Amino acid sequence: MIGQNTIKFIKSLNLKKNRQLNAKVILEGYRLIVESINAGTKIDYIVINENFQRKLLNLKEFKNQIIKSSSISNFNKISNTKNSQGIIAVADIKKYFNQSLQNINNENIIILDGIQDPGNLGTIFRTCIWYGIKSIILTTNTIDPFNLKCIRSGMGAHFYLNNIIQDNHINVLKYLKNHYKTIYVADMKGNNLEKIKSSNNWALILGSEAHGINSDFKQFDQITISKIGKLESLNVSVAAGIIINKLTND
Amino acid sequence: MIGQNTIKFIKSLNLKKNRQLNAKVILEGYRLIVESINAGTKIDYIVINENFQRKLLNLKEFKNQIIKSSSISNFNKISNTKNSQGIIAVADIKKYFNQSLQNINNENIIILDGIQDPGNLGTIFRTCIWYGIKSIILTTNTIDPFNLKCIRSGMGAHFYLNNIIQDNHINVLKYLKNHYKTIYVADMKGNNLEKIKSSNNWALILGSEAHGINSDFKQFDQITISKIGKLESLNVSVAAGIIINKLTND
Repeated sequence: MIGQNTIKFIKSLNLKKNRQLNAKVILEGYRLIVESINAGTKIDYIVINENFQRKLLNLKEFKNQIIKSSSISNFNKISNTKNSQGIIAVADIKKYFNQSLQNINNENIIILDGIQDPGNLGTIFRTCIWYGIKSIILTTNTIDPFNLKCIRSGMGAHFYLNNIIQDNHINVLKYLKNHYKTIYVADMKGNNLEKIKSSNNWALILGSEAHGINSDFKQFDQITISKIGKLESLNVSVAAGIIINKLTND
Repeated sequence: MIGQNTIKFIKSLNLKKNRQLNAKVILEGYRLIVESINAGTKIDYIVINENFQRKLLNLKEFKNQIIKSSSISNFNKISNTKNSQGIIAVADIKKYFNQSLQNINNENIIILDGIQDPGNLGTIFRTCIWYGIKSIILTTNTIDPFNLKCIRSGMGAHFYLNNIIQDNHINVLKYLKNHYKTIYVADMKGNNLEKIKSSNNWALILGSEAHGINSDFKQFDQITISKIGKLESLNVSVAAGIIINKLTND
């Protein structure tokens, strides 16, 4: 059974400063934990409560994991979901600390500038992994990618990424100019996406729905998803999906 | 100033049964309200609190609207967001009641089967309106489209839709078979989306991430977004965006 210290520690990981201090994050839910283990994440331990169906632990993914039990009431103190399945893991995220732009290895990359919605951020990570994109750059005004909601919507995608690099937009701008010939910016007034023919290595910049893209990035090739109907914009994670699908299928 | 009856009424609309009983829904946030008015929604009245910047009401959209004031403390009782902008509207949704499959007019349509996440549902509505799709069918096991989170993620898209039809999957199945030649089902084991050449009028069926599509729908043309990398699936609203973009650009 887990004790008060473990409960206190896991609860502390709800705060960004504690996730950074300890380089740990909470994973809640069976499918997320299985996918994260498959992605090669180091799991410190897994906590299950009495409601959790133990036979689900028969998967090979759980073979060498440390499993701790918890009462329902203690589990509720560490759970962040309404109808919990009764399984939480503490995972190590040291790999993603102090990653720099120099880690990028001449590959297709996504730059997310100031995205604040954790659901959108996680969903974009998921799309990146589906399409084989392994490095993401976040400008410093972007939400913490290890926010619990972001982890949940990522469905394990975080841990397939080689690089989640956080840097300010000046450094990112300089890096892109020096290393990429084909740089796209998703914007409302660009060239029609359907007419784009992409080269092998590209960088794609997407901004927040509320504040748009930093104007310094607008010097690059602006591309637009043509509107047939109405509304001001598409959801940013949907726009990311449509553009990434086009660029990777060219 | 709004009184206790108004507060009580608006709060009651948090529950589906009261939204249905009154055919009213809450819209919270400036951009959502402006877009909904532009879409032609009938607004009963708008409530603002002391934090709201009154000059924002200078838009033509607010010209003939009834504006009521509220104290901050009363407003907090009816608000459902953390950092509220201080503006809420009560809108009429009678238009969407008792809509039937017979309303559909030989047009491209989307069928959503059992989608439970309100954020995904609203995001798909938004994508539909962007691409000019005006009729959506929801099978009866799908979440209420007027759920507050769904309204928020729809960003006004709901009110541009001509039809939001709710019916059981047997009736939907029969209708589709009788009225559509080209019916696609998004699934994991179908034909590559990139190779599809769509005709003019199509129906696209999307299922829930957790439970997939009802097996009765699997008799139709299954289409798949090719995976280049890893993960079990894409987010359903991202998948919807990629497929709709392809079908409308063919």
